[in-house]
Amino acid sequence: MASIKNKQDGDKMVKMILDCDTGIDDALAIGYAVHSPEIELLGITVCYGMAPVDYTYRNAKKIVQLLGSDIGVWKGAEKPLVLEKEYNGLIHGMDGLGNTLGNVQPEDLVDCPSLHAVDYLIEKIYEYKKELTLVVTGPLTNLALAIKKDPNIINLVGKVVSMGGALTTPGNVNRYAEANYAIDPHAANYVYKTNIPITMVGLDVTRKTLLTTEDVANWKQKGTELSCFFAEFTQYYLDAYKKIHPYLKGCALHDPLAIAVGKDPSFVQTIPIHLEVEVEGVSAGRTIEDLYREESNPLQTEVSIKVDAERFMEDFYKNIV
Amino acid sequence: MASIKNKQDGDKMVKMILDCDTGIDDALAIGYAVHSPEIELLGITVCYGMAPVDYTYRNAKKIVQLLGSDIGVWKGAEKPLVLEKEYNGLIHGMDGLGNTLGNVQPEDLVDCPSLHAVDYLIEKIYEYKKELTLVVTGPLTNLALAIKKDPNIINLVGKVVSMGGALTTPGNVNRYAEANYAIDPHAANYVYKTNIPITMVGLDVTRKTLLTTEDVANWKQKGTELSCFFAEFTQYYLDAYKKIHPYLKGCALHDPLAIAVGKDPSFVQTIPIHLEVEVEGVSAGRTIEDLYREESNPLQTEVSIKVDAERFMEDFYKNIV
Repeated sequence: MASIKNKQDGDKMVKMILDCDTGIDDALAIGYAVHSPEIELLGITVCYGMAPVDYTYRNAKKIVQLLGSDIGVWKGAEKPLVLEKEYNGLIHGMDGLGNTLGNVQPEDLVDCPSLHAVDYLIEKIYEYKKELTLVVTGPLTNLALAIKKDPNIINLVGKVVSMGGALTTPGNVNRYAEANYAIDPHAANYVYKTNIPITMVGLDVTRKTLLTTEDVANWKQKGTELSCFFAEFTQYYLDAYKKIHPYLKGCALHDPLAIAVGKDPSFVQTIPIHLEVEVEGVSAGRTIEDLYREESNPLQTEVSIKVDAERFMEDFYKNIV
Repeated sequence: MASIKNKQDGDKMVKMILDCDTGIDDALAIGYAVHSPEIELLGITVCYGMAPVDYTYRNAKKIVQLLGSDIGVWKGAEKPLVLEKEYNGLIHGMDGLGNTLGNVQPEDLVDCPSLHAVDYLIEKIYEYKKELTLVVTGPLTNLALAIKKDPNIINLVGKVVSMGGALTTPGNVNRYAEANYAIDPHAANYVYKTNIPITMVGLDVTRKTLLTTEDVANWKQKGTELSCFFAEFTQYYLDAYKKIHPYLKGCALHDPLAIAVGKDPSFVQTIPIHLEVEVEGVSAGRTIEDLYREESNPLQTEVSIKVDAERFMEDFYKNIV
């Protein structure tokens, strides 16, 4: 496997855990992370999100297997902290991967570790401390539960990169809110108010990273099992984008960009800001400056406002299939 | 008058028109502009806003007179493009200046020029072209009317600085909208969509510039007619802020900061963005990225996201009274 052979010397690699809700762009994020020579992916944790957690677990396992990797997957939260979650499959299909894999079967879950994703996260943060980068590409539920269980991890972890939010740009579930934070605004708000070191990679930048029909056709033409599978479910995502976001010239690479920022923060420009996530009303899930935060609190939140899309897309194409 | 004597060589000065709705911080903006050695204030245009336009005209004339200046004042729009406007005097008093001047009397209007503010603006933009900086510290109604009357001015004017909006921070009339744009969202949206070169100086930065009770006490102690008058109406504003925005340690110098940016853009850091102003619903007046703008359009809007508050406050104190 080219991806493994090309890995850098272990000491120089970014030790990363990916916490996702395997969805289509999460699946691409897994591929990108596993193939990136700069990343040592320690493990994958999943929670409900684009599909129920049994599905996001099964999907992550399937992608890892197709990548020829033995990276472990840990199953986490089944629902948001407070809200109820319903699934419509509009963007990612009912199975989370463009209806390519169908329903979860009992055999898909036989290897599922008994350790809960939240406990895995706590354990690894204690083990790797400042060396660890946690990239969250789903709702912030697993991380919120981990902090509630052991608040020490706030000061232990190296950094968190969270795909979610929309500071200067409209949301994607409505004018105000982005999907990951709209699904569990209480978790997102809780995490931001803890002052954990976190970089938000939201729609402000991810909407500027567009995968086109031509790109996906190229994967198909490449003809490997992996490239054809990626092409198949990504086509579903592209078609959904065409219907729902006709102003965009492709589908946004939300989650892969978070991986990129996890390995190299210079892919984006950020501004420091005390952030909160609204939890009530029509704009629940909206990210906005927290006016009531004590100024004496250290500013630990950076929000991405600009992306070097060209350099990112080049790196993504180079590594994805 | 020290302010006039200290003025720089005319060629080096920023030729500025101030379009305001004289309000309390507009009045401070007039004082700051007239006293700033780097600014040649060509004229003041007013529109309705913090008070009806007869009041904002009278207030501007009164401030100019107290400053010992002969700068002309032109009266403009009486109401928003579409919405109806009601006055509550909550922040600026029913007269716009903390109830220090009372009702407008017939003699306050006898010198009022027959030329409408909108025509004055067009005339001066043709006269000074790229040399002209227009600072708008009220609703964007006068400018919208001027552009509708003569769209050529979009490409003629040097630049516009508009105090208004809130991109990364909550509004001040509700969670979404800032007062100047909430009063006339249609005008603001119209102006931003014309691609006129404009710098937004919104709550993102103006909330970081705070005048305190001690500062106002210092003006009072100075004991001149001007400093005592400024202290009197600003005290009203400070008291209103204490009630409405208890998380702030003073009152925000919204309008003076726009003057500062008009004379020296380096007081703020900006990001380029295609902006729109919502005109409907609970968040009318909200500023947010315009996703539908053609990317081929030149990016002519800069939004201020960070301010060198210390340097600005120093410059403001040095020049205000």
